[in-house]
Amino acid sequence: MRISQLFTKTSKTFPGDETARNAQLLIQAGFIHKEMAGVYAYLPLGLRVLEKIKQIVREEMNAIGGQEVLMTTLQPKDIWEKTDRWDDKKVDNWFKTKLANGSEVGVGLTHEEPIVDAVSAFVNSYKDLPFFVYQIAPKFRNELRAKSGLLRGREFLMKDMYSFSRTQEEHEAKYESAVEAYHRVYQRLGLGEITYRTYADGGIFTNRLSDEFQTLSEVGEDKIFVDEVKKIGINEEVMTDENLAKLGLNRDELIEKKAVEVGNTFHLESKYTDALELFYTDESGSRQSIIMGCYGIGVSRLVGVIAEHFSDDKGLVWPEAVAPYKVYLVSIGDNGKAEADTLYDELTDKGVEVLYDDRDERPGTKFADSELMGVPLRVTVSDRLLESGDRYEFTTRATGETVTLTRSELLAKLM
Amino acid sequence: MRISQLFTKTSKTFPGDETARNAQLLIQAGFIHKEMAGVYAYLPLGLRVLEKIKQIVREEMNAIGGQEVLMTTLQPKDIWEKTDRWDDKKVDNWFKTKLANGSEVGVGLTHEEPIVDAVSAFVNSYKDLPFFVYQIAPKFRNELRAKSGLLRGREFLMKDMYSFSRTQEEHEAKYESAVEAYHRVYQRLGLGEITYRTYADGGIFTNRLSDEFQTLSEVGEDKIFVDEVKKIGINEEVMTDENLAKLGLNRDELIEKKAVEVGNTFHLESKYTDALELFYTDESGSRQSIIMGCYGIGVSRLVGVIAEHFSDDKGLVWPEAVAPYKVYLVSIGDNGKAEADTLYDELTDKGVEVLYDDRDERPGTKFADSELMGVPLRVTVSDRLLESGDRYEFTTRATGETVTLTRSELLAKLM
Repeated sequence: MRISQLFTKTSKTFPGDETARNAQLLIQAGFIHKEMAGVYAYLPLGLRVLEKIKQIVREEMNAIGGQEVLMTTLQPKDIWEKTDRWDDKKVDNWFKTKLANGSEVGVGLTHEEPIVDAVSAFVNSYKDLPFFVYQIAPKFRNELRAKSGLLRGREFLMKDMYSFSRTQEEHEAKYESAVEAYHRVYQRLGLGEITYRTYADGGIFTNRLSDEFQTLSEVGEDKIFVDEVKKIGINEEVMTDENLAKLGLNRDELIEKKAVEVGNTFHLESKYTDALELFYTDESGSRQSIIMGCYGIGVSRLVGVIAEHFSDDKGLVWPEAVAPYKVYLVSIGDNGKAEADTLYDELTDKGVEVLYDDRDERPGTKFADSELMGVPLRVTVSDRLLESGDRYEFTTRATGETVTLTRSELLAKLM
Repeated sequence: MRISQLFTKTSKTFPGDETARNAQLLIQAGFIHKEMAGVYAYLPLGLRVLEKIKQIVREEMNAIGGQEVLMTTLQPKDIWEKTDRWDDKKVDNWFKTKLANGSEVGVGLTHEEPIVDAVSAFVNSYKDLPFFVYQIAPKFRNELRAKSGLLRGREFLMKDMYSFSRTQEEHEAKYESAVEAYHRVYQRLGLGEITYRTYADGGIFTNRLSDEFQTLSEVGEDKIFVDEVKKIGINEEVMTDENLAKLGLNRDELIEKKAVEVGNTFHLESKYTDALELFYTDESGSRQSIIMGCYGIGVSRLVGVIAEHFSDDKGLVWPEAVAPYKVYLVSIGDNGKAEADTLYDELTDKGVEVLYDDRDERPGTKFADSELMGVPLRVTVSDRLLESGDRYEFTTRATGETVTLTRSELLAKLM
């Protein structure tokens, strides 16, 4: 992409009510646009980051056999009444609206009920189980306060997966394979070292302990206690002696940390399948309950978490796996421009993702924008460097390190 | 994908209130799930079709310089009041809901206002124009009746693009480039021959004539008049002598047809930019109005249109460009199974999209399912054919033609 064609620009300002650093940075760099508190649109650069995170999540869910679907935002009341989750007294953050005929519909805040309803057309026999099904789709939650940028949205993008199993043993195997897939996702996103599987309360979903995936962060709203050797954590609210013993954790070895929940996995048992009358017939012809698990990853929240974690006083510092572009190409001077044009075509033809700053701007402005936008690698092509013997400046955003390379050395680095 | 692992199945039934053939077929084949009238979830096979259409649309919008964004479903009231499109008396198919603090928000039915609002952070000077911006995202419209399956949704997926230009001339060039891109989209979807650029009323958007892209169909709700030689159409409501003369159409040469609107393009002039106070400063420092165009394609509607058009009494007949898989592989017998396993791995390794019917089912059941699902090519590997000299049956869904091929002939056909 040539920046001269990109309709967004960097800015020195952001909405006055924006207190979250992730949103401030992403707005200043032109990645997102604030519609209202907790509701953000994705501009071209931000959408590229979002799509890269989606693709990593998708690949890891597919790798464990996840089958992708796309559920709907509009929700019919009847299926939610069967599980007693329609009434605002039971679930207090629904957005609801009305059809033209006056009947109420919900605006999807989670999808257990519609998923069970959708799969019920296909599940009868033990031969139809087990399986994983997932979607990557918007969720809507009527949060009273939404002041954390992408970390807490009223409208946000989530990956939600559901498992359907015949036995407890089969469920546990599916559940652990999902946990392993989650670890791979956070590893690929560059958050593996600071993201802890953390035992927590099951909330409205289950009476069993659930797992949260918590990324350590000073801006996190959650307080967790981590064992840095075992690499697991426990949420304060379930830190009883009994639970600690069960998990093999020693209270004295735990360290208190602030963290952001970037994923969660729940044992749903047969709560939803029973309530919606989804059963299977076993080998002997008897009707049996189906055991469900559900597995969430906050995809748009991760954009915010990564922006918070990988940033410095100059701006964003995207890990390459999720960066909107791999290379920020800067041209300086007329010959620099001519050679940068050639290099841009050559790199993009070879599939290297290049954001090319072809504007008539001062070098300092271009460098500052490249740092604010956080593109991992910067290549500078200038009259001076070309004259001094066909040299190129190569700068790594994360370290600030700059080296001077020949053209062939540069190409070797970028391909 | 192995069908033994796929959680969906074909069915002989569909919801009793489902009268539209596109939805009946898609539900029976396990491609979609009906949540309520006009609201459908996409199951794995249906989502693959939807994603292929999205990708074709995306490629053609990118080719004319479209920059992809993702706007939000939740809409703040204030920007819609500025254009007088908030009041239900003015726009009668809003879904609206309320934030926890009681303030009203809309559920996005179109996105002119939020797009103008979002780009206004970046547009000041003549140097910032022109550009195209687009998204592929859900829209919500509170339709009184929704009985046409995917052809008329309360929740549906749309590609909506917007152009921002400095002069009328610049706008017209952008507009015509979008029209050309639309023709390429319908051509690639296999609908080129039956999709007409059709002059129509500008509706709530503009006083000028707009263009609809109408695909001929017996189930279409629109009545249009087409010139089959010039390959253009005109909507009945604007078929005045004046308009006919302007378009070079002769009333006697026009043929009446039923059609489904699969896209539209509007001249918005500066209605929305002026109302939302988005202007630019020209070379002489004067404030100028910005001319907008908007360009819609009903992406999920196209799934329905293609299903209606490309189907027969046995089921769906997907064009290869949008088929969920290219090849339906059938194994018959034990040796057939062993060789089909090998062939499946070989083809998928080489990037051929194969739906492999590895179930213990009668051949007739497998053939019927392959026809209902509409996968373009079927390969049958059976004990009998292998014994008769390493032969494979190769059937084309659209024509029903079956030939017997050697393994190398088969691979040459599929790669």
